[in-house]
Amino acid sequence: MRDTPYLAVDLAILDRNLTEMARSAQARGLALRPHAKTHKCVQIARRQVALSGGGLTLATVAEAEVFADAGFDDVFLAYPVVASGPRARRLRDLAERVTLRVGVDSSEGAELLAAAVPGLEVLVEVDSGHHRTGVVPDRAGEVAASARALGLQVAGVFTFPGHSYAPGERKSAAADETLALSVAASALRAVDIEPRIRSGGSTPTAALSDGEVLTELRPGVYVFQDAQQAELGSTDLADVALTAVASVVSRGRDRAVLDSGSKVLAADRAAWATGHGRLPDFPDARVVALSEHHATVTFAGPAPAVGERVRVAPNHVCTAVNLADELVVVDGGVEVDRWRVAARGANT
Amino acid sequence: MRDTPYLAVDLAILDRNLTEMARSAQARGLALRPHAKTHKCVQIARRQVALSGGGLTLATVAEAEVFADAGFDDVFLAYPVVASGPRARRLRDLAERVTLRVGVDSSEGAELLAAAVPGLEVLVEVDSGHHRTGVVPDRAGEVAASARALGLQVAGVFTFPGHSYAPGERKSAAADETLALSVAASALRAVDIEPRIRSGGSTPTAALSDGEVLTELRPGVYVFQDAQQAELGSTDLADVALTAVASVVSRGRDRAVLDSGSKVLAADRAAWATGHGRLPDFPDARVVALSEHHATVTFAGPAPAVGERVRVAPNHVCTAVNLADELVVVDGGVEVDRWRVAARGANT
Repeated sequence: MRDTPYLAVDLAILDRNLTEMARSAQARGLALRPHAKTHKCVQIARRQVALSGGGLTLATVAEAEVFADAGFDDVFLAYPVVASGPRARRLRDLAERVTLRVGVDSSEGAELLAAAVPGLEVLVEVDSGHHRTGVVPDRAGEVAASARALGLQVAGVFTFPGHSYAPGERKSAAADETLALSVAASALRAVDIEPRIRSGGSTPTAALSDGEVLTELRPGVYVFQDAQQAELGSTDLADVALTAVASVVSRGRDRAVLDSGSKVLAADRAAWATGHGRLPDFPDARVVALSEHHATVTFAGPAPAVGERVRVAPNHVCTAVNLADELVVVDGGVEVDRWRVAARGANT
Repeated sequence: MRDTPYLAVDLAILDRNLTEMARSAQARGLALRPHAKTHKCVQIARRQVALSGGGLTLATVAEAEVFADAGFDDVFLAYPVVASGPRARRLRDLAERVTLRVGVDSSEGAELLAAAVPGLEVLVEVDSGHHRTGVVPDRAGEVAASARALGLQVAGVFTFPGHSYAPGERKSAAADETLALSVAASALRAVDIEPRIRSGGSTPTAALSDGEVLTELRPGVYVFQDAQQAELGSTDLADVALTAVASVVSRGRDRAVLDSGSKVLAADRAAWATGHGRLPDFPDARVVALSEHHATVTFAGPAPAVGERVRVAPNHVCTAVNLADELVVVDGGVEVDRWRVAARGANT
């Protein structure tokens, strides 16, 4: 028996999630370039690449360095990388080791990239409604032209339709994604740049992304799924592959306090979430409060006793995984392996 | 120059915060047993113990193992530790290496502790209004008597007045703390147990805790302070010793996106917080959105340019520190050291 709290991955559910996404992308002729920031594990990335035959998406140079060290040779950094300071040299070294593409959404960013890695391939990031990074789609041509003028190779456009993370918004976010990438592609063609890569996708929209306008999907969370995907209706609690195994440390009649706090589950909580995670084995239970080492859970019936163990699906699995040094791999209820979270904390 | 994002500690502010809390506790005759879960750094714990002459508070056996390895010999685990599985043996080993006390709030918990470490010193946890772990104060005698009957040594009572983490609640939470510990102490005396330790304290209430009823304070956050302490009025942004150094990666006219996302700042956000952290150098700026590698900030004036660096105070510094492998120590604007977050991820 292992001391709680720890993160456990159900291998059968993981493999089902991986296979289903690969099948769904292939059925639409879409390349699948999964975002490995979710799991940060070499073992899972190998399974993904074996299924998709393609490369990985990552967010940071440090993450890419970890996966390059593990032998992965095709990386897209879906992020407007600022190539200043030591990162300029690190990016150049990385470009010599792997097929590398990087996001760009400003002429200032493009200048730094061009100085750091002459001739680097870039994709212009466009905002499809999430309003984070990315330019409005009809400005994509302008950024692309300035990147080209600096000697960068513009391979296409990408977006993250993150506004799909709200109840009832999946379909409209997928439609926004299609429209944004379509407009951005036209904007590139208007300056004589062929956008051969048109990349989108988030886990909530992945099944809905347009197979004509898009060429590539970049979902991340789908490998494990999580409580917020279940509450969005993008998956079912039964398809959640990663849970925190926690112990009851204190209890009342209809409530219990678990040792899986925010230092295990992470504190992510969308305004529409019903709590700080979900218990797949107690669908009516709610995690009503979370502190660093405490999760307070209300139960519909009698709460489990002090010392009993329960499983908690984090709200947002990406940030939960980033707190752990390793994932415990379980198959048929038996511990079969431990996978290092190799890129944990690789933020730079 | 170091690649962003990273966590920087201003040594002068840190030392000022440490000294002021030690002085404030001493002025009231209170022992100071700081909660080292906030910083998880041996170097800071050494400074704390040098000032207080006392021991440390920690939350988990794994944290205590790290600090015991570093030579600390007096630990209170302010948590209802469940001493089952491998943890039973680990707790016994720990009790042989350090002066150890542990929290208890149930007879089930007491049974496991007594089986794991016969004669262990325990403090009964009482709920002073935070409604997390702990029994109602007038039931403290019952738990204490059951612990004594199992052979445990009951050294006193403790509480965490965590309901002080709400605007305008500091004074009433401190009053609740006094009342709860006073009632609990009487409940122990009623079963002929002298509560020689009466321990309380949170950073918002620490300056207000009663020096007659309490014997000991256990604040944690005060070493660094953070955005939520500033917004509670428990400190000033100028007293925040730890900030994330971040780069602007994308910008609009009055907004910028920084590379310090929830994998650096942590996602903790109380309902009353103005955003996902604060910028000490831009008091009017607000962190309006946070994702894993993006912090979207609105500025009262023109936003800084792509590539510029800004400092962000996390909402909750304990969970931000737990994401980092090291803290960069800065004195007078110059990097002077790096401290390992030795107990990062030590959750079991």
